[in-house]
Amino acid sequence: MTEASAQGAGPGVFGVVDVGGTKIVAGLASATGILRTERLSTHALRGPDDIVDRIARALTGLSSAPDLAPMSAVGLSVPGPLDRRSGVVHFTPNLLWQHYPVADRLSQRLGGIPVLIDDDANCAALGEAWQGTGQGFAHLVCLTIGTGIGGAIIIDGTLVHGHQDLAGEIGHMVIVPDGPPCACGHSGCLEAVASGAAIGRLGAALLTQNESPALARLAETRAGQVDADLVFQAAAGNDAACQAVLGKAAEHLGAAVASLIQVLNPQAVVLGGGVMSKQNAAWLIPAIQANMNRHLFEVQRGAVQILRGELGDAAGLWGALQLVAPLARDVLPTGVLG
Amino acid sequence: MTEASAQGAGPGVFGVVDVGGTKIVAGLASATGILRTERLSTHALRGPDDIVDRIARALTGLSSAPDLAPMSAVGLSVPGPLDRRSGVVHFTPNLLWQHYPVADRLSQRLGGIPVLIDDDANCAALGEAWQGTGQGFAHLVCLTIGTGIGGAIIIDGTLVHGHQDLAGEIGHMVIVPDGPPCACGHSGCLEAVASGAAIGRLGAALLTQNESPALARLAETRAGQVDADLVFQAAAGNDAACQAVLGKAAEHLGAAVASLIQVLNPQAVVLGGGVMSKQNAAWLIPAIQANMNRHLFEVQRGAVQILRGELGDAAGLWGALQLVAPLARDVLPTGVLG
Repeated sequence: MTEASAQGAGPGVFGVVDVGGTKIVAGLASATGILRTERLSTHALRGPDDIVDRIARALTGLSSAPDLAPMSAVGLSVPGPLDRRSGVVHFTPNLLWQHYPVADRLSQRLGGIPVLIDDDANCAALGEAWQGTGQGFAHLVCLTIGTGIGGAIIIDGTLVHGHQDLAGEIGHMVIVPDGPPCACGHSGCLEAVASGAAIGRLGAALLTQNESPALARLAETRAGQVDADLVFQAAAGNDAACQAVLGKAAEHLGAAVASLIQVLNPQAVVLGGGVMSKQNAAWLIPAIQANMNRHLFEVQRGAVQILRGELGDAAGLWGALQLVAPLARDVLPTGVLG
Repeated sequence: MTEASAQGAGPGVFGVVDVGGTKIVAGLASATGILRTERLSTHALRGPDDIVDRIARALTGLSSAPDLAPMSAVGLSVPGPLDRRSGVVHFTPNLLWQHYPVADRLSQRLGGIPVLIDDDANCAALGEAWQGTGQGFAHLVCLTIGTGIGGAIIIDGTLVHGHQDLAGEIGHMVIVPDGPPCACGHSGCLEAVASGAAIGRLGAALLTQNESPALARLAETRAGQVDADLVFQAAAGNDAACQAVLGKAAEHLGAAVASLIQVLNPQAVVLGGGVMSKQNAAWLIPAIQANMNRHLFEVQRGAVQILRGELGDAAGLWGALQLVAPLARDVLPTGVLG
């Protein structure tokens, strides 16, 4: 126990990591706040061990500052269905992991400190409920609409994990039973018809069919690549075909949100993720609400708020911190606590 | 306190009532078992006050036996969205109640004893979880498939009510967004495409179109009236049109159950209600499972049981008893407890 670490960032210093399909944010945090962060590219094709190595190096680098107590645990937000107890990710379509024991592997590279994991949508919900839009709602449903669609459910202030840690897979609710194929291997999932990737795909199809001159012009500046943001831009410029694509996505999201309200009766639904930029949300949330209201009882309609997640990318890090913050007193050596 | 009542059914005697669209079962129970019951016709068109009067008379009659302690509280299972605290039923399409304070009204007619209410699907789930198929599952989803479709969710052993007591409205999940009209006033709800009433309606349409000679023959014995059971009978006799109707219902139920599993990750889904007779269930449950599996991850598929509710009509009464049984020590006069 050196003097330097004792006067460090307080009783607990935690690693917090949010692993995404294209980028990773690694950070250091005290039990109540994020101290510093570093961004890495994911490079999914290099495989999971390579990702874990680079996360370990980043955390080691961040925590080597002389004014910090040693890192005592890591909270890790990862995509994909997983098992919290074993720390194994079952599979992640975007990262190509299969039954990967990410918690053990990262722990091994960090001298054996505890690594606690939860999925990215759960971490984002924990973050929004703790520090963001979800504050003060005991009954909350969260959707993370990005490349895919993740979800999380909070009932009476507690995150619902289900009996295998698989609850909250809102992106794989069945919306169009014989609909388009989904990254999960099935078809007609919400994610397959209303995610950022789905909107991008539908936009690309408009280009192929030459149905949206506005989108074609915007795509020229991006080497012909279409993503959801470009479809939103063209729609904002009054392109009818792009508006129809987004209208259909809002219809599906509205139906899914209505079903969730029928089943769970939450006080609020928080919509976050890359697709929910301030600009996009200004159009998308009212459109989702209008579609949702078509399927709600009068008594439900005024009683649920549909809100945009405020924390953006930071939600996952705050959630990762909430995985480990409760460990502070149990895990840290007494010297650090004193 | 007479000697007779002191040697009665034990410390607590409760009224338990299950109000259905066509019949009502009223009963007396101890904290651990149902002692005697009486059936009434609902006669919905006579209005809610008339129903409450007849329930009160039935309970008074049942409890007037000389060997019983006085009735100390009533647990009441009623259809429709409701508010447990105020004891008001918001609306019930089948009973034509609107903002009806059923708990207060029944309490007034029973000398002011407490009347606790919950909706019929929640009560059925409480019953199945306590005494029936749901025993031993901490994470449970229940569907009651009868004239309508009700639902209930148990997470970590606790019934989920949501913030307005409106959780569990599984029958109003959106399954076919622009589908047929539902009794709730909207369209495309699960109830509108897969309930007993929906199956009966689709059967009647087959008759109108002269598409099912087998069903027509069966309907002759019932003055041309078609209900779900008749469609099941014709399908069991290899009638292709009726098999197609049930196949479609199983497809919708399978999709809804899959969505619920994605969202809640339960250990079991219990299917009860009038449509789930032993005979019907023997065909319907495997068909629902096959459709459901098309939408589940491998890791979910083997880990959830789809089971038939064992208690049938009694589920609601057991659930109603569970509403009041915990009151035993609080409500009963000491003399009775001693």
